[in-house]
Amino acid sequence: MRATLIYGPGDVRVEEAADPVIEQPTDAIVRVVLSCVCGGDLHSYRSWANGEPKRMGHEVIGAVEETGADVRLLKRGDLVLAPFTYQDGTCPFCRAGRSTSCVNGGYWSRFNGGQGELVRIPLADTSLFQLPVGEDSELLPSLLTLSDVYGTGFHAALKGGVTYGSRVTVIGDGAVGLLAVLSAKQLGAEQIILMGRHAARTELGRTFGATDIITERGAEGVSRVRELTGGLGTEIVLEAVGHMPASEQAIGAVRSDGTISRVGVPQYEQVPVGNASLFDRNITLTGGVAHVASYVKRLMPAILDGTVNPGLVFDRTINLDEMAEGYRAMDAREALKVLVRP
Amino acid sequence: MRATLIYGPGDVRVEEAADPVIEQPTDAIVRVVLSCVCGGDLHSYRSWANGEPKRMGHEVIGAVEETGADVRLLKRGDLVLAPFTYQDGTCPFCRAGRSTSCVNGGYWSRFNGGQGELVRIPLADTSLFQLPVGEDSELLPSLLTLSDVYGTGFHAALKGGVTYGSRVTVIGDGAVGLLAVLSAKQLGAEQIILMGRHAARTELGRTFGATDIITERGAEGVSRVRELTGGLGTEIVLEAVGHMPASEQAIGAVRSDGTISRVGVPQYEQVPVGNASLFDRNITLTGGVAHVASYVKRLMPAILDGTVNPGLVFDRTINLDEMAEGYRAMDAREALKVLVRP
Repeated sequence: MRATLIYGPGDVRVEEAADPVIEQPTDAIVRVVLSCVCGGDLHSYRSWANGEPKRMGHEVIGAVEETGADVRLLKRGDLVLAPFTYQDGTCPFCRAGRSTSCVNGGYWSRFNGGQGELVRIPLADTSLFQLPVGEDSELLPSLLTLSDVYGTGFHAALKGGVTYGSRVTVIGDGAVGLLAVLSAKQLGAEQIILMGRHAARTELGRTFGATDIITERGAEGVSRVRELTGGLGTEIVLEAVGHMPASEQAIGAVRSDGTISRVGVPQYEQVPVGNASLFDRNITLTGGVAHVASYVKRLMPAILDGTVNPGLVFDRTINLDEMAEGYRAMDAREALKVLVRP
Repeated sequence: MRATLIYGPGDVRVEEAADPVIEQPTDAIVRVVLSCVCGGDLHSYRSWANGEPKRMGHEVIGAVEETGADVRLLKRGDLVLAPFTYQDGTCPFCRAGRSTSCVNGGYWSRFNGGQGELVRIPLADTSLFQLPVGEDSELLPSLLTLSDVYGTGFHAALKGGVTYGSRVTVIGDGAVGLLAVLSAKQLGAEQIILMGRHAARTELGRTFGATDIITERGAEGVSRVRELTGGLGTEIVLEAVGHMPASEQAIGAVRSDGTISRVGVPQYEQVPVGNASLFDRNITLTGGVAHVASYVKRLMPAILDGTVNPGLVFDRTINLDEMAEGYRAMDAREALKVLVRP
């Protein structure tokens, strides 16, 4: 099979790799039909320097190729979605809808890459989700967003406490930020202020439900949020970037006693949380790695009936031969999110 | 009048100071009947080095001495409670029960000191609370805790999301930690694990509702919490210390997807909040300066009818002549919390 690897900053290669095989009786092997490049992959693309090349990709729709002896709910040929985690579905965290915290779960991308031809998925019965459509369905890109970006945007909104009438600021016009806008809209937000500078993206943000666009950054951007909110900021800020300037912008835009919900993978370990930043104003900091698998069945119906079209975040489609160009285009912000048809 | 000042680390003096006067028509002057020393005061006691001496004390019960022309709800002689903030009672934050965020409010201890004979309280109608008892009431010490420590412990529990059946870890056996235990109990917590080393205090914690006491600190303390909670930690951790080791202990003791609610005034500005600490496990960090004034009327009835006795945190009473000794005893952890009868 062929697979995508990152060797170092900017160095993406597609190479032959050993086909995955069933290792545990609960495993399934999936032939990748559709994958994509994640904003999170760009962190590796920019800075990978661990010596060993790294297999890439953690968002997959595919056809079940082979199942272990204990897999009961899936059979060869089933079209399935693979969110970025595997989980047992039965531990206290899974039962509470917190799949990413599963005591027996993990990230299958640690030993696989979705940007390739085949993947092995552990605990297949509770980690793969059957799709009620065919391989040629137009809905496939939207369904693929359930593997990460849509569930991650939804997680931001849910942990942020968005509900009917909420006023929300979303920081970041990447795919996750835009789908945080969509999620906030679905949860009933009345005002959704999107902070982003890329016109085509913020325009898509408007399609998804943003009521106001702020192109300024930093202190100027914060002032604009305050102008739009009677000087107070919004009760909820969804931070979908992960860099320090976005974190500081979130602290500036949030109302006293409000909530910052982070889903951008932090490219920092420490942030200010003391008197001057969070404590004096009773700011809540929440968010984390999204419980995407727990959200699949909640979010899928509105995709199937056409209510939402999160697949609009994909603005380019490539095959495995074009992976290096796909990463380059996303890194250069020429492409918002790149679909991969192996 | 006489007032307490801190000149530098360990240097507490009681000196003559100018009597406060009505400056705004909404001010009241209050003659202090009962005050106390706060754990927060000890931070100044240990490290004050700003050159200028600092007036101390922010917890007061007293008798109204004089009112400005626009004060309508109070009259000379009324016995009142003064929480540590003043507020207008009408801004969006006050209406939402978030008095500390009042857009016209502040800390009256910035220009007064409760550990003295007289204080000026701005916006008196909404910043002083009439007490339905006399100056000689046995309930006065318990009522005084509504000015800060009880409301602060309650804030920790409320922001932490404590409700019926909750399992909670409380870090810190100071007055705030112990009253966080009491508050968690009042809000319905089933298991309350108190982490503290001082036997007399943890025993009072049991009186207030603690079900388990852990005397170990650091990694060992965290292991003990996990032993008591099926290896998972508690969903809620109330951190009532404010130092980094307590913060790290909180991260260790909290369950994945759980909440750390902080009310110990942070003696740090940055803490780890990245992948390895909060983000990967979806930990929520909340808390801040308590909305004590908003809680007074909610918490007072159970004091008046004897359901709770938060005044048990006071284990020593002094007068103004003994202030230096009072600070020393609290700093040395010989006294849990010191009452001051000027």
